[in-house]
Amino acid sequence: MRVTDVSKLKVGVLGGTGPQGKGLALRWAAAGIPVVLGSRAADRAEAAAAELRGLAGVEHITGLDNAGCAADADVVLVAVPWDGHRDLLEALRDELTGKIVIDCVNPLGFDKQGPFALPVQEGSAAQQAEQVLPDSRVTAAFHHVSAVSLADLSITDLDMDVLVLGDDREATDLVRALADAIPGFRGVYGGRLRNAHQVEALTANLIAINRRYKAHAGLRITDI
Amino acid sequence: MRVTDVSKLKVGVLGGTGPQGKGLALRWAAAGIPVVLGSRAADRAEAAAAELRGLAGVEHITGLDNAGCAADADVVLVAVPWDGHRDLLEALRDELTGKIVIDCVNPLGFDKQGPFALPVQEGSAAQQAEQVLPDSRVTAAFHHVSAVSLADLSITDLDMDVLVLGDDREATDLVRALADAIPGFRGVYGGRLRNAHQVEALTANLIAINRRYKAHAGLRITDI
Repeated sequence: MRVTDVSKLKVGVLGGTGPQGKGLALRWAAAGIPVVLGSRAADRAEAAAAELRGLAGVEHITGLDNAGCAADADVVLVAVPWDGHRDLLEALRDELTGKIVIDCVNPLGFDKQGPFALPVQEGSAAQQAEQVLPDSRVTAAFHHVSAVSLADLSITDLDMDVLVLGDDREATDLVRALADAIPGFRGVYGGRLRNAHQVEALTANLIAINRRYKAHAGLRITDI
Repeated sequence: MRVTDVSKLKVGVLGGTGPQGKGLALRWAAAGIPVVLGSRAADRAEAAAAELRGLAGVEHITGLDNAGCAADADVVLVAVPWDGHRDLLEALRDELTGKIVIDCVNPLGFDKQGPFALPVQEGSAAQQAEQVLPDSRVTAAFHHVSAVSLADLSITDLDMDVLVLGDDREATDLVRALADAIPGFRGVYGGRLRNAHQVEALTANLIAINRRYKAHAGLRITDI
């Protein structure tokens, strides 16, 4: 698999009917990358795929149940709610064997004081994925993307860096290329998977920033 | 205390002979803000102050032992090594009563695989400071500033946002103004103190980025 060949990959999106998964699927499809949405129910995935085909004006978006999506795709984004993350990945271990998996899940809680990071026994959602999927190539990325901005194709420059974490250089390079494929995004290597917790948890700070400044805040890394 | 009056505040820097504290002291002094450096030994603090007076071409930098620094200053930056953080703050509880305290300490470890975040019983260095100093107004900020860049006055635009965390609006506004006083920095509210851990820990990712890209990486927050 060549890093420069991202347009020939099929990207699967588990949780592809949720706002973040759907938004990234739309952007990848609009950039010419074939996408397969996964959901618990195949008909809901196909309905979302039909909606995105209309929005992007392309045909290369399909919908399947999560297992079908994982089996059909070359690279798989995990965009499911944190509650259920482990169970879903355990159920898809066979379909995900040997594949690059991108975890973008943010384990967050909310109370009267706003958002906060939930403790995760394995350290982070990405490290949980790594433990559950020992035969996959697990990376972490796309934690901070705004679903609202992704869904609005009138925003043609999303203006943020995507931190890509992982211990497998070829895998993080490919995921960086998948970020670069979306106009305005830049994929930036962000460290080893053991440093994923703080990137996931930083989403709580970005939500606090959004509330204070009425914004859809993203990150840029300076001096690189 | 008026937020707009930062040039009339005296800023104390505990750990003012270390690279990060010294670098911030230099920049504040160069911006016209009086600074008092603290160190375990008063003579080392005064020697560092003399060096900074020469570099900045100003007279308003003095050096005292840490207790003298904490007593003399209006606002106090904690820039000491994580090892010894709690003990130092416990010893200075009286001097810091009623004052705004800015914690910039990053509890990090290093091994053959590079940097990683250390677990902190209280959640973060800043939350430890809050527990040890119940009568101070604790904020967290300036975690990601590059000591190398701070020390190089030929870099006139430091090009980064400073995330300022805390639960006391007046205190975080004042610390944001202290960030804004340094050319190139912008103080951005970054959430409540309970979300400080990930900001401290993200320093490990920035170090990983620095190593990969040969840079002094900083953050910018987009869309605000």
